[in-house]
Amino acid sequence: MESMSEMKAASAGPQHSSLGGEIVGRINELAAISETPERLTRIFLTKEHRAAAELILSWMRDAGMGAHLDAIGNVCGRYEGERPGLPCLMLGSHYDTVRDAGKWDGPLGLITAISCVADLHKQGRRLPFAVEVTGFADEEGVRFASTLLGSRAVAGTFDESVLGSKDSAGISMRDALLQFGLDPDHIGAAARARSELLGYVELHIEQGPVLEGLNLPVGVVSAIAGATRLAANLTGMAGHAGTVPMPLRRDALAGAAECIVEIEEFCRTDQSGLVGTVGYIHAMPGATNVIPGQVSFTIDIRAPSDGDRKRAVADIVRRVENIAKRRKLKLQVDVTHENRTVPCAPWLKSQVSEAIAGEGCRVFELPSGAGHDGMAMIDIADVAMLFVRCRGGISHHPDEHVDVADADAGARVLLRLIENFRPRGSTQ
Amino acid sequence: MESMSEMKAASAGPQHSSLGGEIVGRINELAAISETPERLTRIFLTKEHRAAAELILSWMRDAGMGAHLDAIGNVCGRYEGERPGLPCLMLGSHYDTVRDAGKWDGPLGLITAISCVADLHKQGRRLPFAVEVTGFADEEGVRFASTLLGSRAVAGTFDESVLGSKDSAGISMRDALLQFGLDPDHIGAAARARSELLGYVELHIEQGPVLEGLNLPVGVVSAIAGATRLAANLTGMAGHAGTVPMPLRRDALAGAAECIVEIEEFCRTDQSGLVGTVGYIHAMPGATNVIPGQVSFTIDIRAPSDGDRKRAVADIVRRVENIAKRRKLKLQVDVTHENRTVPCAPWLKSQVSEAIAGEGCRVFELPSGAGHDGMAMIDIADVAMLFVRCRGGISHHPDEHVDVADADAGARVLLRLIENFRPRGSTQ
Repeated sequence: MESMSEMKAASAGPQHSSLGGEIVGRINELAAISETPERLTRIFLTKEHRAAAELILSWMRDAGMGAHLDAIGNVCGRYEGERPGLPCLMLGSHYDTVRDAGKWDGPLGLITAISCVADLHKQGRRLPFAVEVTGFADEEGVRFASTLLGSRAVAGTFDESVLGSKDSAGISMRDALLQFGLDPDHIGAAARARSELLGYVELHIEQGPVLEGLNLPVGVVSAIAGATRLAANLTGMAGHAGTVPMPLRRDALAGAAECIVEIEEFCRTDQSGLVGTVGYIHAMPGATNVIPGQVSFTIDIRAPSDGDRKRAVADIVRRVENIAKRRKLKLQVDVTHENRTVPCAPWLKSQVSEAIAGEGCRVFELPSGAGHDGMAMIDIADVAMLFVRCRGGISHHPDEHVDVADADAGARVLLRLIENFRPRGSTQ
Repeated sequence: MESMSEMKAASAGPQHSSLGGEIVGRINELAAISETPERLTRIFLTKEHRAAAELILSWMRDAGMGAHLDAIGNVCGRYEGERPGLPCLMLGSHYDTVRDAGKWDGPLGLITAISCVADLHKQGRRLPFAVEVTGFADEEGVRFASTLLGSRAVAGTFDESVLGSKDSAGISMRDALLQFGLDPDHIGAAARARSELLGYVELHIEQGPVLEGLNLPVGVVSAIAGATRLAANLTGMAGHAGTVPMPLRRDALAGAAECIVEIEEFCRTDQSGLVGTVGYIHAMPGATNVIPGQVSFTIDIRAPSDGDRKRAVADIVRRVENIAKRRKLKLQVDVTHENRTVPCAPWLKSQVSEAIAGEGCRVFELPSGAGHDGMAMIDIADVAMLFVRCRGGISHHPDEHVDVADADAGARVLLRLIENFRPRGSTQ
């Protein structure tokens, strides 16, 4: 399948294949900057992170942009419009990675945006607005367990209390910033004003299997789904696996299993795009011949609408409570994390859809189940996202893959969007 | 409840309370011999094990028995009958413990047997058979991951290949025996001939909640249930908890949960005394926001009849296979352990029942779901067991508890059994 796609890309003519080819080349070049040579790991404020920033800055400058590192380590490029100082359409994605990462999650959106600007620059074309490209310094939150650090700084919502948090080696974020050459007391300088931005558009790999299943290279995002994470703990009575008859048991794992089946069934039959996952489970004492007396597990619930998600969480908690009650298990359930849904702006989303249609593709709208920098950018700008198909829905894994033809399709849609972009007022 | 029972014991007259009181006193004395002062741990061939053996030998000698350590470390006491060298009724249990053990599991049977012999000795009474009491050196198998080492040596089924196995500190069983002062090349000398034994009777705490639920101090064991242990592994497809729609998932944990619910339901509705337990589960990668791609779990199935157990295992495996197939999960399932059922001998069991009835108790028969030294002794003798009620069914835990009144009831039944014992031929 890959070789067929690459053949198609090769036969699609020099203009089109040039964008995809350049993007994939740069994806590989950036992926070579890693903590370990065999596997891709590029963590916030490390020397690899710095080397990657320098490479991206050079690409931005080659694309005719003014480029600098901001106070949190974001790589910021600006391509002026018909006259200097115009408000901008901001494009971007992140350049940090998880550990043992794929090379497309983040860099694809950033590199594609730079290639689009380079194309404008090559044409000598100036638009009635500026185009900015931001490479966010930390979206994944691997090092300090706080996500969206780069985009929060840009949105002016960076929480300065996280400067004191330490990485696994005991280095504080404050010290890491100083070592990187940044001033932790001036992160506020990275913040942008709402008036400077006409909108924020991010291209990203889907990280799921939907577009592949529909045989579509790209899709337009309806919303970044909100998420609720719960930690559940069931306590029953441990006992000898041989000596306690079935009717006398209070088996915490059997209870948890019933909850997991119920959560799956609830989400599977729901019609609101809900997804629910139990990803972690721990049964105690955890011996073959002992009835588990205690089980802890997590529940992750996401939906494109906050109302649907909240209704679902309440419904799921009620079902889990009923199971615990019927089985005489003690239940403790806590919300450990909550993110509201970030809806994509209809006016901006429709311009993305037009660009997809303009490239001859079927327009398909899907929610983003994963979090993205748009979740922070929503505080200062309307947000839209363009998803590019990835192989097998695999992400956060070395097997993460995007065909060159799809990278090219994404770039053509993004370029068409930029070239035809009308700010909010003018589209009404 | 405890204080009421103790009051009853106190008011039951000097003769009866003396057995229970002495037994509980010795249980506490033996429990003080431990690897750590706060928690009871007494492992095979350690210095605590040695100190415990010396104490038990002294009790045996005080009870009028000849006593010695055999080649594997079993404490062997013999009370001659009307003339020296008669075949014996053997009583016994083990004196090793699990880690953080209760003090009753093993020692109760051993100490009660010694107290019964002491009572005969005090009366100056000789029987038409000898009575032997054996304190088995290793039943739990904590140190070398091989169980029933003491009783296997007595039964002549000790597997010499385990002499090379090492404990967690790297000490081989051979070296540990040498350090204890035993000769690993002469373990065969511990073996007894079938002709020397008239039967083997073990008193043990129930380790389950059945007798407590029925408000009975003792019960007669029908059989030591056979067990099959399975290791199951389900492989689906890991994925992002937010990006993979429910119908496209191959969630290994949801599949395992369905198996666990099915196993529980199958055993719960079965009428053959079957118990089934999933005690261990591990989901990979085990992150809140990742759909589990792989799950391993154990299944422990026990039944009083081998036929029922084998039928149940086959049925459960077929159900697990069907779940895996429907969910497109790869299944690997292996038998990791199998023990056949050890039925208690009807002639000997009926003498235990007579003794229970003779003490004015209701006779209740129940299977032993836990393993016991009788599983090895069956190879050279007919076996019977007497269970004593324990609190809450708790065992292998510091909270393990037997009321003094129940310890006394067990001792009176065992003494009555010995005094009225007729060898197999004479009961027909």
